[in-house]
Amino acid sequence: MKIAILGAGVMGTALTIPLSRNNNQINLWGTKYDEEAIKSIINFRKHPKLSVEIPRLVKVFSSNQIDEALKDSEIVVIAVSSNAVKSIVEEAAPYISKKAILIIVSKGFEVNDKGEVKFLPDIVKEEIKGENPIVSIRGPSIANEVAFETPTMVVFASKNFKAMEKCKKAFETPFYKIYLTKDVIGAELCSSLKNIYAIGLGFCDGLEKKTGKSFFNTKSALLTLSLIEMAELTKFFGGSKETVYGLAGLGDLDVTSKGGRNRMFGELIGKGLSVKEALNEVKSVTIEGYEAAEKTVKLKLNKPFLNAINSVLFKGEEASTAINKLFQ
Amino acid sequence: MKIAILGAGVMGTALTIPLSRNNNQINLWGTKYDEEAIKSIINFRKHPKLSVEIPRLVKVFSSNQIDEALKDSEIVVIAVSSNAVKSIVEEAAPYISKKAILIIVSKGFEVNDKGEVKFLPDIVKEEIKGENPIVSIRGPSIANEVAFETPTMVVFASKNFKAMEKCKKAFETPFYKIYLTKDVIGAELCSSLKNIYAIGLGFCDGLEKKTGKSFFNTKSALLTLSLIEMAELTKFFGGSKETVYGLAGLGDLDVTSKGGRNRMFGELIGKGLSVKEALNEVKSVTIEGYEAAEKTVKLKLNKPFLNAINSVLFKGEEASTAINKLFQ
Repeated sequence: MKIAILGAGVMGTALTIPLSRNNNQINLWGTKYDEEAIKSIINFRKHPKLSVEIPRLVKVFSSNQIDEALKDSEIVVIAVSSNAVKSIVEEAAPYISKKAILIIVSKGFEVNDKGEVKFLPDIVKEEIKGENPIVSIRGPSIANEVAFETPTMVVFASKNFKAMEKCKKAFETPFYKIYLTKDVIGAELCSSLKNIYAIGLGFCDGLEKKTGKSFFNTKSALLTLSLIEMAELTKFFGGSKETVYGLAGLGDLDVTSKGGRNRMFGELIGKGLSVKEALNEVKSVTIEGYEAAEKTVKLKLNKPFLNAINSVLFKGEEASTAINKLFQ
Repeated sequence: MKIAILGAGVMGTALTIPLSRNNNQINLWGTKYDEEAIKSIINFRKHPKLSVEIPRLVKVFSSNQIDEALKDSEIVVIAVSSNAVKSIVEEAAPYISKKAILIIVSKGFEVNDKGEVKFLPDIVKEEIKGENPIVSIRGPSIANEVAFETPTMVVFASKNFKAMEKCKKAFETPFYKIYLTKDVIGAELCSSLKNIYAIGLGFCDGLEKKTGKSFFNTKSALLTLSLIEMAELTKFFGGSKETVYGLAGLGDLDVTSKGGRNRMFGELIGKGLSVKEALNEVKSVTIEGYEAAEKTVKLKLNKPFLNAINSVLFKGEEASTAINKLFQ
């Protein structure tokens, strides 16, 4: 199939590996922030942050070539950062065929002034101004491991089952197993909530470093509490608890709480940095969980661990105090 | 309350800390295998494997003093190794009051020749030959952390709600939070199954060390698969899926797959040791997950990850081969 990937970050680039294995025709397009990566792939067939070789059959396009990159694409993968999704889809829309399937790898949601939640598939749908099927990819997928073909399992979520099946054919390899779900709400909610809870689980890692004591029990208890709260919130928003207990929920929460920026941000706070200091320390990157947490405050989602995390992030409570209270 | 703890291993000894905080009268009795620990506590108020100080109000009894240790006890905690439960309860039975509550910290189950499963509370009930209420403690509780009062949450499981509430009063502290469930089957099954799955998750750690690659995605996908299979098996045996998604299931599985002997045993196999070699390497300790896995073979429990683990343990399949197949 002809597949265009919008965004040459680590995830967009990593997906060229399973897609190449299945002999798809792949166009990888970089935004203006990806120029270094694009040059590196053209000259050395390497992304600066991925040590794997990008196959020759992957064609690479720079930011001013979006029309060429999208030409005749049957699948368009959106793999830009959360904040860029709207503008990139708006820019791409004129060149996307009415029949093309859109795949979302990015994560995020919006809350309007009325306190209504809008998930990424709806945001994309509005920008594309068409009836294109939309599919999200959720589940444990650290980009580097996808590129190295370390085995993983992910979930494709969409209201359109046929579109998902078509995508599954293009993406699935012996190292990249795909399950399908129609529970878009559940999958979307998990992908944002897990970043918040990963910050809270990161607090424990910071406390370990600060005190020199191990916090295995605490972390496992709080991982469980995270999943319980995610299940309750998902049900509240009309999604299915099964999604939370699966790859999009537990799978992604677990992998995010072991690595990544959200957990690291939490660790810095647990070690004793103020939120401002921790944000400063990681200033070059967006902490998606922090932004998502701000939105949950607006929504007044009343769950003990979520409240504890928000109290640390936005009310200056000590991480150790907030965590200790959960056990009392 | 007057509480006797049978077994002065790390877990039995660690429980004296929350119990002391609540001003219970505690008798800690050691089996003949605990003699060194008992001496050490008498002389130095320290268990050889726990660096915490054992409070003076904990009275210590050696293997020939079981009658004194049990005298007037309102709660009797059974904290000996799985294999010793039957004989120790038989030895203790004459000295246990008809009204005493028995608490099981040990783990395990039996399968008879007809393929019927018997869980530990029923095994204890048979040995005690009385109507004593029986309560199990399940959930994430690494002994050292319980002793150091690192916060954790656990589940008490029993058919007898009043007995559980009484135990909760004796055990609960600001660092040891207790939830109650009547789902004894679910709690018991989780406590044994999680040891088997921890071996399988340990395979991934071994593959990481063998290949030098990271397997975060693989492990998180397999943690999810473990929980799904544990939920299906628990439902099959008449327990509740909710238990599996809670502290007794996910909480204990997570903590067990991060530390402990079962995970380490799996890691050795993942690194390339044969099962025989791995058993030899850890010969001084029982691998509870290995013994439990043997029983699941008898029961013909047909689940993909469980089958994969058993195929490695009992049919000589390579861990990497068995794991890769799960993603195809």
